[in-house]
Amino acid sequence: MSNPLRAAIVGSTGYGGVELIRLLQHHPQVEITSVISSSSAGTPITEGFPHLHSIMTDNLDAVDIPLIQSKADVVFLATPSGVSVKLAPQFLDAGLKVIDLSGDYRLKSGEAYKTWYKHDPAEERYLQQAVYGLAEIYGTQVKGQPFISNPGCYPTATLLALWPAVERGWIDPASIIIDAKSGVSGAGRGQSLTVHYSEINENFRAYKVNKHQHIPEIEQVLSDAAGKPVNVTFTTHLVPMTRGIMTTIYGVQSEARTDQDWVRAYEEYYAGKKFVRIRPAGQWPATKEVTGSNYCDIGFAADARTGRITIISVIDNVVKGAAGQAIQNLNLMMGWDEALGLHMAPVYP
Amino acid sequence: MSNPLRAAIVGSTGYGGVELIRLLQHHPQVEITSVISSSSAGTPITEGFPHLHSIMTDNLDAVDIPLIQSKADVVFLATPSGVSVKLAPQFLDAGLKVIDLSGDYRLKSGEAYKTWYKHDPAEERYLQQAVYGLAEIYGTQVKGQPFISNPGCYPTATLLALWPAVERGWIDPASIIIDAKSGVSGAGRGQSLTVHYSEINENFRAYKVNKHQHIPEIEQVLSDAAGKPVNVTFTTHLVPMTRGIMTTIYGVQSEARTDQDWVRAYEEYYAGKKFVRIRPAGQWPATKEVTGSNYCDIGFAADARTGRITIISVIDNVVKGAAGQAIQNLNLMMGWDEALGLHMAPVYP
Amino acid sequence: MSNPLRAAIVGSTGYGGVELIRLLQHHPQVEITSVISSSSAGTPITEGFPHLHSIMTDNLDAVDIPLIQSKADVVFLATPSGVSVKLAPQFLDAGLKVIDLSGDYRLKSGEAYKTWYKHDPAEERYLQQAVYGLAEIYGTQVKGQPFISNPGCYPTATLLALWPAVERGWIDPASIIIDAKSGVSGAGRGQSLTVHYSEINENFRAYKVNKHQHIPEIEQVLSDAAGKPVNVTFTTHLVPMTRGIMTTIYGVQSEARTDQDWVRAYEEYYAGKKFVRIRPAGQWPATKEVTGSNYCDIGFAADARTGRITIISVIDNVVKGAAGQAIQNLNLMMGWDEALGLHMAPVYP
Amino acid sequence: MSNPLRAAIVGSTGYGGVELIRLLQHHPQVEITSVISSSSAGTPITEGFPHLHSIMTDNLDAVDIPLIQSKADVVFLATPSGVSVKLAPQFLDAGLKVIDLSGDYRLKSGEAYKTWYKHDPAEERYLQQAVYGLAEIYGTQVKGQPFISNPGCYPTATLLALWPAVERGWIDPASIIIDAKSGVSGAGRGQSLTVHYSEINENFRAYKVNKHQHIPEIEQVLSDAAGKPVNVTFTTHLVPMTRGIMTTIYGVQSEARTDQDWVRAYEEYYAGKKFVRIRPAGQWPATKEVTGSNYCDIGFAADARTGRITIISVIDNVVKGAAGQAIQNLNLMMGWDEALGLHMAPVYP
Repeated sequence: MSNPLRAAIVGSTGYGGVELIRLLQHHPQVEITSVISSSSAGTPITEGFPHLHSIMTDNLDAVDIPLIQSKADVVFLATPSGVSVKLAPQFLDAGLKVIDLSGDYRLKSGEAYKTWYKHDPAEERYLQQAVYGLAEIYGTQVKGQPFISNPGCYPTATLLALWPAVERGWIDPASIIIDAKSGVSGAGRGQSLTVHYSEINENFRAYKVNKHQHIPEIEQVLSDAAGKPVNVTFTTHLVPMTRGIMTTIYGVQSEARTDQDWVRAYEEYYAGKKFVRIRPAGQWPATKEVTGSNYCDIGFAADARTGRITIISVIDNVVKGAAGQAIQNLNLMMGWDEALGLHMAPVYP
Repeated sequence: MSNPLRAAIVGSTGYGGVELIRLLQHHPQVEITSVISSSSAGTPITEGFPHLHSIMTDNLDAVDIPLIQSKADVVFLATPSGVSVKLAPQFLDAGLKVIDLSGDYRLKSGEAYKTWYKHDPAEERYLQQAVYGLAEIYGTQVKGQPFISNPGCYPTATLLALWPAVERGWIDPASIIIDAKSGVSGAGRGQSLTVHYSEINENFRAYKVNKHQHIPEIEQVLSDAAGKPVNVTFTTHLVPMTRGIMTTIYGVQSEARTDQDWVRAYEEYYAGKKFVRIRPAGQWPATKEVTGSNYCDIGFAADARTGRITIISVIDNVVKGAAGQAIQNLNLMMGWDEALGLHMAPVYP
Repeated sequence: MSNPLRAAIVGSTGYGGVELIRLLQHHPQVEITSVISSSSAGTPITEGFPHLHSIMTDNLDAVDIPLIQSKADVVFLATPSGVSVKLAPQFLDAGLKVIDLSGDYRLKSGEAYKTWYKHDPAEERYLQQAVYGLAEIYGTQVKGQPFISNPGCYPTATLLALWPAVERGWIDPASIIIDAKSGVSGAGRGQSLTVHYSEINENFRAYKVNKHQHIPEIEQVLSDAAGKPVNVTFTTHLVPMTRGIMTTIYGVQSEARTDQDWVRAYEEYYAGKKFVRIRPAGQWPATKEVTGSNYCDIGFAADARTGRITIISVIDNVVKGAAGQAIQNLNLMMGWDEALGLHMAPVYP
Repeated sequence: MSNPLRAAIVGSTGYGGVELIRLLQHHPQVEITSVISSSSAGTPITEGFPHLHSIMTDNLDAVDIPLIQSKADVVFLATPSGVSVKLAPQFLDAGLKVIDLSGDYRLKSGEAYKTWYKHDPAEERYLQQAVYGLAEIYGTQVKGQPFISNPGCYPTATLLALWPAVERGWIDPASIIIDAKSGVSGAGRGQSLTVHYSEINENFRAYKVNKHQHIPEIEQVLSDAAGKPVNVTFTTHLVPMTRGIMTTIYGVQSEARTDQDWVRAYEEYYAGKKFVRIRPAGQWPATKEVTGSNYCDIGFAADARTGRITIISVIDNVVKGAAGQAIQNLNLMMGWDEALGLHMAPVYP
């Protein structure tokens, strides 16, 4: 490639960072010029990730703004909440494009951020500058922008499944219940009893019931779709698997519709959006059917007995829920085809 | 033990049957005198289940009524739906006590059975004779009865979680949504792509959405609790694990209550019921916390923002959802302590 | 039970300790009177182990010798290596019986201990007092003794599989290669990247090749069997499962023998030993066939082409490889039936 | 691509076939023009593999030689043993290039085939025509050939790990013991109790001990390396995971060497071979470190105590052990860069 875009990845020792490395190997217009880790700077990235042997053998850089400024055009922040708050402004001020994968710039209300994240929010002007990159919904707003806030994994799966229904008024927003399930990689590479193999394997658990920090993010977008404030019930569960998110979403239909009605409406809504795949009536997607890929698959079950609609969506939380959507946002930002470098078929089985 | 009760197990080559064998090893008043399989009669049970080597080495008997009549006092039918329809009457007529683990005698309406199970229903008089053995709710009706219909796995987890709330009017029955998740053993030992390891592992899927045959069973009992017809939305998912069911249940509260209110009410309701364990406010049970045991654990999350209550219950589908509850029913039937032979602590981790 | 033996468990917040609690619930002669944890003293054990809700609700005691002396007759030390070195003598001096599940008293040579465990060894007199409780081999030496060193999980599976062959001279001790595989629970409940779910799931790895601290323990016992020093090649692997160990053992046969010869010889050797089950010729045990039980199952494959014998053994590492064998040793120590309280059938599936 | 090579895949409803589809999506010189299945001809491939929705939506073709002759230049046979025996000659006679992924053309001795595979062998002239495509060893023989027999999954992992050692005389060939472990996908998509989730999950088992049909394939190649007949002991185990093979190989060193000696020798031997990665001394590869990729990673542990060397190799059985190596062979056959279309980084975690 001639004059590739130079990318730096902060948080390269986490799962989001290392997935960016995997995916950007396939990108025809991007070259990774710096992998960065505050905790392991100076050591080769293969020390923590031996699977990168012979693929990416660079030493990890420190979070050194001038250094990164000299090496990169765009920075991916695959850092935990509370870190991006501080880093993003520094990179922006240094003239770099920034795509932030954390939750720090997703909520437009700093107050809400403080309530749900228990950290001090980012500065207002950066908060307002950040474009929320839910690509299939707000993609047109991303183009040409220097600062993108990449959506959370649960919100991505939830919102792609709900947006058309709420926007068109096909369900009562007050009736929305989201029962979400995630693989363990969503919890990151940090160590805790919560991710201990013997505690997770052959086990299924709920966590943070009614308290997950993705709730206000979901509500912010659904309120935008509905044109009025929306509150949802949202439950998260941990599935004994590494990758994958499913959301099973319940709502009361505004009028009786068939599965086929739902399929058609969504196919129409997402026409031309390569990464949203609507399943035929009577079929629902399973998480493995998107593993390793940037797809979000959606299926429907309308129930004449209860008047409710059940919408099921799946994503790979590390791809469409993090690194993949971040690259999709980079593509949109740069005015490239949104699918550039993201044409991976799911890995099955 | 002097004069133990002699038990026969039909369907001993399935998971329900083999779990009855495991559990009855610990029962002080029961001796297994016949293990029965129509497909493998004449071969040692250890051929299909080598883990029973030195524990239960009998050859499998055929389904031979006079033979079983001569050897047993009680018969457990761990047979698929459509088989018990025919077998139960024969054993009853031969003077044996029968505990049926299939769905054939759970629905009081033969018509509903036909709709949901796609088989011809059992004869009306046997249908009416069968006592639905949801032990903690209908246990007093079981005593002295010769014919018990053992509840389904999903209904057991669902109904123990919902009964007090519905019966007391704490939730609006019309608002009930049950998002259920099960380990793969619930699908039995039969072979299909649905239980193929490479298809299930690292995968999470929904199935039979709005169509599961346990829906009418759940509605039948909830209607009893509510004193009026109740329809529910019920979704089933397959979790990549062998044992365990979780139900995450949503409903609109009749008035605002706290987690603590819910905990207290349920503790009160289930006082003296050894196998229902109510978790303290702020805690929710995980499936592994009941694995191998007969417990049903229940936790609560009341949400002031939405007015909804989320109830989470877990069981081991093979124990409390099948073989364990069947033995509990035997105990109740015989007038014994309901926990006899069922004092196993969960296997953790 | 009248006058039950009072047992204390040090290390009750680990997997070995909590399995002792599970198993001792079934023991007709033992009552747990103290569960002890240096790190969590004063809190209820259900805080870390909610599955014990309603079963064992005691607060954890501190490691307080006089207190434990007043409450217990026997102490199980389910503590890490380096801790039992100090604790065991204190309990012994206080007149308590001690069963140590750690590696601290297994090696008769303090020097070897230092080399392999990288800790200072125990005092010589306690080292010599400790009886190595490989129950089926050294069981007769256990009776009446106050201090038992419980074998390691890998050595138990390895040595029960190898002892008869080595003792009878059926294989060349110099040719022994042990390829061992373990579930993750063997690594304990401590947190590290090594037990992180996302790193273990859908992964298989070797570790500590030629360096595992169980090597000298295995060699010490095999040297005893052979009557001369034996060195072995021993490799350990981590299997993505929670419980279970398999050892696949290779050796050169002293003369050509058939599977049937091997089966007969082992059946003879282990006649009357309830927890060793020899599989018929042509069958090999799988780990799940002993899960939750105290069995060690062994199978054979003699190869006429190469002159080698392959011996395959399986145990549940937490039961026969730790807590179960510890109770078996207690039974032997007390002169009781070695199987008392250990009659659990494997949990299958 | 201008004038892409047109490829047909027979056996597209199996895991090998569907992996060829996934990988060939990335290949710049190949277009899939026919996906073939004798059992499901006429139906869309997405029916059995919904993850291909929007990626590959063709209907499956029947095994119709003239049709395929008109549509394709090369045929991949991802068919079971016993099927390729008949199909390969027909495609070859029709002028197509053939890459056979089955075992039907791997053994040069028809007699050995009959003994180990229990089928009638292929015709001698086709047997002799087939080039055994172990790419890193026999790659130069593949160029320009019309008929390649793709190696088995176990042999690939075993032989890449052993060839340099045997060829250089660094180990005694008579001492070789191979302890192999595989994920379940190696057993294919067919249904049997052996691949039933509840039987595999949380289980580890050995199978076909001394009887696996890959034994003669391994011995044929090692005999070639040694220049004399070699017999090996080879054990296969099933790991509760979907993808991945590890072989742990033991041999007696011809003279004492260090890990570093081994690493250097192998690095030298495999210099320029992109898909073999030698790990630094003291590190051993885990299966997940190659998942989804075409790499074979190899590590060493020389043991001064016993004089033995332990070699550990891992591959993704579906990629390097099947579809990936088949594409590598296509590249070599066509005179292209062997890595064309195969630059996928491993999917981690």
